[in-house]
Amino acid sequence: MDFALTILGVNGAAPANGRFPTSQFLQIHHHHFLIDCGEGAQMRLNEFKLPRSRINHIFISHLHGDHIFGLPGLLFSYALTDRTKPLHIYSPAGLEAMVTALLMPGGKLPYLIVFHEINTTSSELIFKNKELTVHSIPLKHRIPTIGFLFKETSFEKNIIPEKINELGLTVPQIVAAKKGKDVKLENGLMIKNEELTYPDYIPRSYAFITDTLYQEEIVPYIKKVDLLYHETTFCNDGIDNALTTMHSTAEQAAKIAKMATAGKLITGHYSSRYTNLQRFLEEACPVFPNTVLGLEGDKHELERRRTQ
Amino acid sequence: MDFALTILGVNGAAPANGRFPTSQFLQIHHHHFLIDCGEGAQMRLNEFKLPRSRINHIFISHLHGDHIFGLPGLLFSYALTDRTKPLHIYSPAGLEAMVTALLMPGGKLPYLIVFHEINTTSSELIFKNKELTVHSIPLKHRIPTIGFLFKETSFEKNIIPEKINELGLTVPQIVAAKKGKDVKLENGLMIKNEELTYPDYIPRSYAFITDTLYQEEIVPYIKKVDLLYHETTFCNDGIDNALTTMHSTAEQAAKIAKMATAGKLITGHYSSRYTNLQRFLEEACPVFPNTVLGLEGDKHELERRRTQ
Repeated sequence: MDFALTILGVNGAAPANGRFPTSQFLQIHHHHFLIDCGEGAQMRLNEFKLPRSRINHIFISHLHGDHIFGLPGLLFSYALTDRTKPLHIYSPAGLEAMVTALLMPGGKLPYLIVFHEINTTSSELIFKNKELTVHSIPLKHRIPTIGFLFKETSFEKNIIPEKINELGLTVPQIVAAKKGKDVKLENGLMIKNEELTYPDYIPRSYAFITDTLYQEEIVPYIKKVDLLYHETTFCNDGIDNALTTMHSTAEQAAKIAKMATAGKLITGHYSSRYTNLQRFLEEACPVFPNTVLGLEGDKHELERRRTQ
Repeated sequence: MDFALTILGVNGAAPANGRFPTSQFLQIHHHHFLIDCGEGAQMRLNEFKLPRSRINHIFISHLHGDHIFGLPGLLFSYALTDRTKPLHIYSPAGLEAMVTALLMPGGKLPYLIVFHEINTTSSELIFKNKELTVHSIPLKHRIPTIGFLFKETSFEKNIIPEKINELGLTVPQIVAAKKGKDVKLENGLMIKNEELTYPDYIPRSYAFITDTLYQEEIVPYIKKVDLLYHETTFCNDGIDNALTTMHSTAEQAAKIAKMATAGKLITGHYSSRYTNLQRFLEEACPVFPNTVLGLEGDKHELERRRTQ
């Protein structure tokens, strides 16, 4: 039951200093997601030996080039490797026209792309399956932009195996216990669910917040998130640029992480002007100590934990 | 007076095995050209410390994704670095619509892109300045495709400095000698141009032949070319695929190089199925010994040579 984020690209705007534009790969259980797709995302997927072909859902924050110019290449490569599974792409409006224009003129893909246009003005449930949900988070950038919150849904309870023989549980009773119910034995005795099952796993969560002005309005959406990626385009010396270009600083990201009581903060979307990234940590850690530098190839895993 | 080719990407179709799709950087004197622009071309330009900003002319062979998907990122990066110089792009028809659709919707570039649509059915002079010419070469691929021949024009002759004092040459006489003329001294003596000037430099040339079926019809266009890049998507084991997908093998490229009496053959556009490239050399060299593997980052320089 994995929950792991791999950073594919961390540079802002244009590639520089060996860093690629924004892209991330997220695995939750047996689901594999791509978040943003800057140029070179498919090269990074290859390089880090990530299962590109298992991606069925791509989430795009906004339509600036450094977040989408890797899409045509990836979609083209899928065609070359005879993909037939549909691919779902979630983004603000306008992406379909852009992608369609660039894909081989007159060519036809051997698989279906389903474009999901996401409203960028309010938080919405945009994806759901048995194991997780994805909500959009409205951000403030120069064009319509959203963040994403990935969250596990509650797990089915695990029954304590010894209890089955000990109490002579029937299949319907086991099914009921797994769903969290108390169980009435044939002798009429009621057994509390806590006695039959292990404590719950705590649902894990990841929030992807990129390309945004510092805005405290997002805090309620990401409250107690385990893993938070918040863009840090600038250090404090670039605060004026941050305001002008509608980006955040390392210290601002740390403030958001602190207000949200996040588990861990990952930085990224660094301006090309910064060759050495240590400064981002130096400015974020005093505000939010559990900050780590987002670096390409790094994998951030969340362990499963029980309530007790 | 440089003449140097740097390989940026050598893989066919999709990036694989650490190799990027097709792109090359060519410097002739103080002119810098990009030839094809597969995804990641701008990263390779950065990595190999090539002067990206000096490129004013981009030549695109055809509109398959692996030859153009690096364009949007490069054009976007130029905008971010406040380029104002016009950029000329030469390609078969259709590129303008694709590029325009993908560049920032509603955004305006701070520089002009001039799209030159090249006829793909005959060889034409498509670029010319004082130092060089570029001709298109029609190729046979699944969509309209052209190769390019870059050729230095004849140099102005260099006068032998000692002759100026020795013969008391006047400025008009020096100018005439530089243009290859004989000179009549004041005493009536005629001096042959060969006595006044160094032997000519031999104009150097480079041909870029990508994505094509084996076709001997191109040989006259590239006769005696100094440096020949000819795609070698497959080895002999892939001859059927070469026919189906309209590509060439290493041996076929070598045959073309031999017929053209080229100076050196560079291979490339390798199918992703080949992790080890040695085999390409093993199949090309028996036919054309002066074959080298095209590898990303390798720089192929042509020295200036005189006629005598």
